[in-house]
Amino acid sequence: MEKLTVIKVGGKIVEDAQSLDWLLGGFANIPGGKVLVHGGGRSATKMAASLGIETTMVGGRRVTDEQMLKVVTMVYGGLVNKNIVAKLQSHGVNALGLTGADMDVMRSVRRKPVMVKAEVAGTDHDIQVDYGFVGDVERCDGQLLSMLLENGIVPVMAPLTHDGSGNMLNTNADTIAAETAKALAPFFDVTLVYCFEKAGVLMDEHDDDSVIPQINAESFRQFVSDGVISGGMIPKIENALNACKAGVSRVVITKADQIGQDAGTVISL
Amino acid sequence: MEKLTVIKVGGKIVEDAQSLDWLLGGFANIPGGKVLVHGGGRSATKMAASLGIETTMVGGRRVTDEQMLKVVTMVYGGLVNKNIVAKLQSHGVNALGLTGADMDVMRSVRRKPVMVKAEVAGTDHDIQVDYGFVGDVERCDGQLLSMLLENGIVPVMAPLTHDGSGNMLNTNADTIAAETAKALAPFFDVTLVYCFEKAGVLMDEHDDDSVIPQINAESFRQFVSDGVISGGMIPKIENALNACKAGVSRVVITKADQIGQDAGTVISL
Repeated sequence: MEKLTVIKVGGKIVEDAQSLDWLLGGFANIPGGKVLVHGGGRSATKMAASLGIETTMVGGRRVTDEQMLKVVTMVYGGLVNKNIVAKLQSHGVNALGLTGADMDVMRSVRRKPVMVKAEVAGTDHDIQVDYGFVGDVERCDGQLLSMLLENGIVPVMAPLTHDGSGNMLNTNADTIAAETAKALAPFFDVTLVYCFEKAGVLMDEHDDDSVIPQINAESFRQFVSDGVISGGMIPKIENALNACKAGVSRVVITKADQIGQDAGTVISL
Repeated sequence: MEKLTVIKVGGKIVEDAQSLDWLLGGFANIPGGKVLVHGGGRSATKMAASLGIETTMVGGRRVTDEQMLKVVTMVYGGLVNKNIVAKLQSHGVNALGLTGADMDVMRSVRRKPVMVKAEVAGTDHDIQVDYGFVGDVERCDGQLLSMLLENGIVPVMAPLTHDGSGNMLNTNADTIAAETAKALAPFFDVTLVYCFEKAGVLMDEHDDDSVIPQINAESFRQFVSDGVISGGMIPKIENALNACKAGVSRVVITKADQIGQDAGTVISL
């Protein structure tokens, strides 16, 4: 089976022109088929603030009312996505920016109000949260993506999906990456790489040398109950484990400048 | 030759949810291959104002400095484009949002400072203008667009191109529509429709019943020298005439709610 790399990049890397250039240069050099999934939450928060719109996060996820949906649609789908696509083209990568609405590639359902556990929400008791215009992925068209990849096109996916009824929905970029990798698993030998500002999943978040080399489903539960893994890292690893269950060969959490090296945290069942 | 309709929509229609829905419903019903090209200048101006960025227009065209480039990239490529794509999907149209950078479909060169005639700029003498990050289209990949259309995909094009060196460039939506129609002319019998808030090109801009039914190259020059046609309408018709010279069968300037009818102004050589 042909190798395929799905790379998710977010946080500081997308926001800083220099680190983004560095990352995209590295990405351009990865052999074989590849997909880039990007975040942009910091840029969205900054843009919202410039527009006088307050950002509310619960458990590392953004509450998306109508105003915030406009902000994320323009920041993720426009500013961040097109900037990456144009830069990749200058590196000779035939990039195509996509949201889930484009060619109906990823459809989701709007999340109903959910109970969020106290330890996730950072509150003293469980709370009910309406995340607003947030989508939970229903299906990803792996066949279409596979067809694009076979034609030398490199999909660059923004963390946005649609509901099929005319609404865009804000969707966690880690979930987009996992769903994309899973949908492509029947067609390729898929490595899913979560690339962010830390060297991997850390025992001590202030020590970049404390990378946990391997995590499996069992040790994950232990790390969470011990409080070693918390906040936004929890859904990240849950998605990784689900991706492995669905046929993805390997999930790697690593630093942007370690792409292509055997570094970071490897997640498997 | 198979029929293809390239429709450019801009101005008030894109900004108002109700008129946009109405337009997209009409667009969905057009038989055969189709491409939608949208503007979004009013939304960009509004967004810029909300961010404290001043908009400067010269001769109906936007001066695009670095800050304004960010605004148009996110408003055109994100907010407006993805809203249209999601809505078209709900109408059963398999839309794909594109800027010129996506799959390198339209490349342009950054415009050098140019002399703008007094009557275009609305000044008392000719002035030199640096439009900033504005692109003049170099080439459009008609073969790629044709391939997408043959696969039932409906391109939705934002008024943005790229320079191949990693920069997005703001590009007049009328020009995008004309270049797209011209690039598709070898593959289809192309009708190019400029759809906006007036019923056509008007003799008297305050009288919607004063539509000029036909304009050709010669009468155009006369209308301009008589002051009947001025401002932003001049590049619109120049683009239309160039499109006809390059093989487009017919250019129509009409009102959104007249799409598909024999109404508006028909432009030919």
